[in-house]
Amino acid sequence: MLLRDGLVVGAKGHLFIGGCDAVELANEYGTPLYVMDEIYLRGMCKAFISAMKRCAPEGMVFYASKAFLCTAMCKIIRGEGMGLDVVSGGELYTALKAGFPMDRVTFHGNCKTQGEIRMAVEVGVGRVVVDNHSEIPFLQEIAQSLDKRVNVLIRLNPGISVDSHEAVRTGAADSKFGLGIDDGEALIAVKMIAGCANLSLTGVHTHIGSQIFDMAPYKKAVDRLTDFMTLASVVTGAELHELVIGGGFGVRYTREDPPTMDPEEVVMTIARETERQAARKGMRVPRLILEPGRIIVAEAGVMLYTVGSIKEIAGVRTYVGVDGGMADNPRVELYGAKYEALLANRAGEKAAGTYAVAGRSCETDVLGYDFKLPPPKVGDILAVPTAGAYQYAMASNYNRVPVPAVVMAHYGKSGLIVARQRYEDIAQYDRVPSWL
Amino acid sequence: MLLRDGLVVGAKGHLFIGGCDAVELANEYGTPLYVMDEIYLRGMCKAFISAMKRCAPEGMVFYASKAFLCTAMCKIIRGEGMGLDVVSGGELYTALKAGFPMDRVTFHGNCKTQGEIRMAVEVGVGRVVVDNHSEIPFLQEIAQSLDKRVNVLIRLNPGISVDSHEAVRTGAADSKFGLGIDDGEALIAVKMIAGCANLSLTGVHTHIGSQIFDMAPYKKAVDRLTDFMTLASVVTGAELHELVIGGGFGVRYTREDPPTMDPEEVVMTIARETERQAARKGMRVPRLILEPGRIIVAEAGVMLYTVGSIKEIAGVRTYVGVDGGMADNPRVELYGAKYEALLANRAGEKAAGTYAVAGRSCETDVLGYDFKLPPPKVGDILAVPTAGAYQYAMASNYNRVPVPAVVMAHYGKSGLIVARQRYEDIAQYDRVPSWL
Repeated sequence: MLLRDGLVVGAKGHLFIGGCDAVELANEYGTPLYVMDEIYLRGMCKAFISAMKRCAPEGMVFYASKAFLCTAMCKIIRGEGMGLDVVSGGELYTALKAGFPMDRVTFHGNCKTQGEIRMAVEVGVGRVVVDNHSEIPFLQEIAQSLDKRVNVLIRLNPGISVDSHEAVRTGAADSKFGLGIDDGEALIAVKMIAGCANLSLTGVHTHIGSQIFDMAPYKKAVDRLTDFMTLASVVTGAELHELVIGGGFGVRYTREDPPTMDPEEVVMTIARETERQAARKGMRVPRLILEPGRIIVAEAGVMLYTVGSIKEIAGVRTYVGVDGGMADNPRVELYGAKYEALLANRAGEKAAGTYAVAGRSCETDVLGYDFKLPPPKVGDILAVPTAGAYQYAMASNYNRVPVPAVVMAHYGKSGLIVARQRYEDIAQYDRVPSWL
Repeated sequence: MLLRDGLVVGAKGHLFIGGCDAVELANEYGTPLYVMDEIYLRGMCKAFISAMKRCAPEGMVFYASKAFLCTAMCKIIRGEGMGLDVVSGGELYTALKAGFPMDRVTFHGNCKTQGEIRMAVEVGVGRVVVDNHSEIPFLQEIAQSLDKRVNVLIRLNPGISVDSHEAVRTGAADSKFGLGIDDGEALIAVKMIAGCANLSLTGVHTHIGSQIFDMAPYKKAVDRLTDFMTLASVVTGAELHELVIGGGFGVRYTREDPPTMDPEEVVMTIARETERQAARKGMRVPRLILEPGRIIVAEAGVMLYTVGSIKEIAGVRTYVGVDGGMADNPRVELYGAKYEALLANRAGEKAAGTYAVAGRSCETDVLGYDFKLPPPKVGDILAVPTAGAYQYAMASNYNRVPVPAVVMAHYGKSGLIVARQRYEDIAQYDRVPSWL
């Protein structure tokens, strides 16, 4: 049994992704290779969108660019009727280039540069999420100078701790993100924004973390945020009507993980809780905007590597060397992430032992020490599922290794959505001062 | 007192690097900005080279490209008479482009691709370091087909554990790197290479780890490697005459670190130990090649950021947001690295409190929680010393943030050595398949 539905063992015992033979993809496009399964990806989008239509017809679902973004991805997100969260000028640039409707873009960031704020206002993003006091006067100044009105959300720090990696817990009281409810900082921001002629405060936002498998913190967030909305509406005299709940719903990297969360269930739970809290507090039910995070894209992706070396250390372990590593996927080193792997060209064979898979970087980048595999040989194609999020997005040129290509697979068709870098692409930025 | 000699507080209380006003550099080239101090960098190269000339006149010093590489860096390394370690086709490409003499290049890698091996043989690198059995037959095949002789070193795993971060301990018995002495794997490689008509085994190599402040493991490595050289010479009947000792000598990131190691002392200690062990074992003193690692470049670099947000969380801490983060320096997240920081535009002012410096990435990238600074304001330039190694080299486009520029500073002159990426550079690889 493979990790998820849609990954299948097909002809010649090969792994198939999105209806494409993974071995043929490796041959055609080379390795390392990120493969994205468009069927799975669109299926996940549709599941969220249709659940939202049923549970909260005014609601919206926004995709978090930071998990994986390129022009083709923007087109898919647009086509599925979702919005887009961006956190930088670079993400906004990509959305613009892809013709993504700007009114469906939300601009986030704990330390936006002045250039980015100007860009966001100029192109008319639908919402800017204010994350600190420092940026409010500048946002107003820019909006005024361009004679624009800007819809603003406040990112709230709800003081909710979740069970996740420290780096991706984002809603605890001690966080670089958001403005505290308890210490009054968020209310100060409300008043500051209310005093800005070109800013309209439409609602509040929170993000409680990533890889969460439990609905309780989301319900708590709805409670805390709707509390704050009633308070802010009283203080400013203007009703806040948008409630944005962010936080990555959990996905499966290995079969030890809980099952991937069910879009239907998460949308329904949060929508019902929003209605319930609004009724309790005598407020109009706010428009719900959900930011489901990596769940949209993580399991759509599969990474393909070629085995390049086998090293048996007697009495210790066998290292299987592959042609990629922490440069194309730093999640193991950053978060202690766990993965599964299989041989794409012998996907039907039974595992015969336990192997360590070592990356090619010039340090100890080991993808894991306990992969169950048939005995790997040099030239085998190693496939690593759940590679769609935070892998291409975090890829580096460490060791001046080119960033791999990304291929979209769709019912047996395949096409590049990101071209592979060449050596000359990496060196294109090199300059030599006159005195050298 | 600043962290090292050569970083000074100059006119207007500004930080000066390589004789350049850091604030002026930030204004001219923008932030985030990597600044490299050519005076310090060349001084470190000269210190190693001159010590080697005195202690082991046949010896050589090789710079580890992976710490920081670009065309200008190759020119400096060449000019100082050093050799170059490369671990990928991309690093080799850069050396070629810079006109670096190929006979002074050593090609490393635990999982070299066949394309890289072919490239290394074609361009005639001085030495290829064999890291596993799998690559030997292919190396011979390529050398034969191109009618070339290839000088080969074997990377030995000496089974030496050092006190360093797990990811950069590279010489322990359980390692993806090298071939074991104790388990006989290295000797098998010696015999395999001896049977290859186009390969000449010239010596052995080891790398015991990074950020090492103690000479004892280096001495132990010399002992173990010379033992192996005598054994291999007996077995093959041909004398091995090159001893390559790699391993990053420790540098200072904060004043809690031990002092940066003294090039004179490390070269002398290793050269003397080599002579001593050779005499004990009745072998000719091998040519010593030293790979000192990050010490060449780490402290030459200073990172400059602009402060973009201030967030005080009452009773908790104050976050100072800057316009860079884990995309330009993932070392904190990867290794728990510690740094110091100062305000480049107010470098003469006394610290007045403790601040957390938060990056701009869309996760909790905090450079550190306890920086002693004068009260930072939006617009201040924050300088982070010891930014020369493994920062630009590991930079990513996470959040589609462009990779910052690198500037060389030399007696008050400055010039780009790596140009800043633009948004369109990141998006240049995007493709859209016909059906999208």
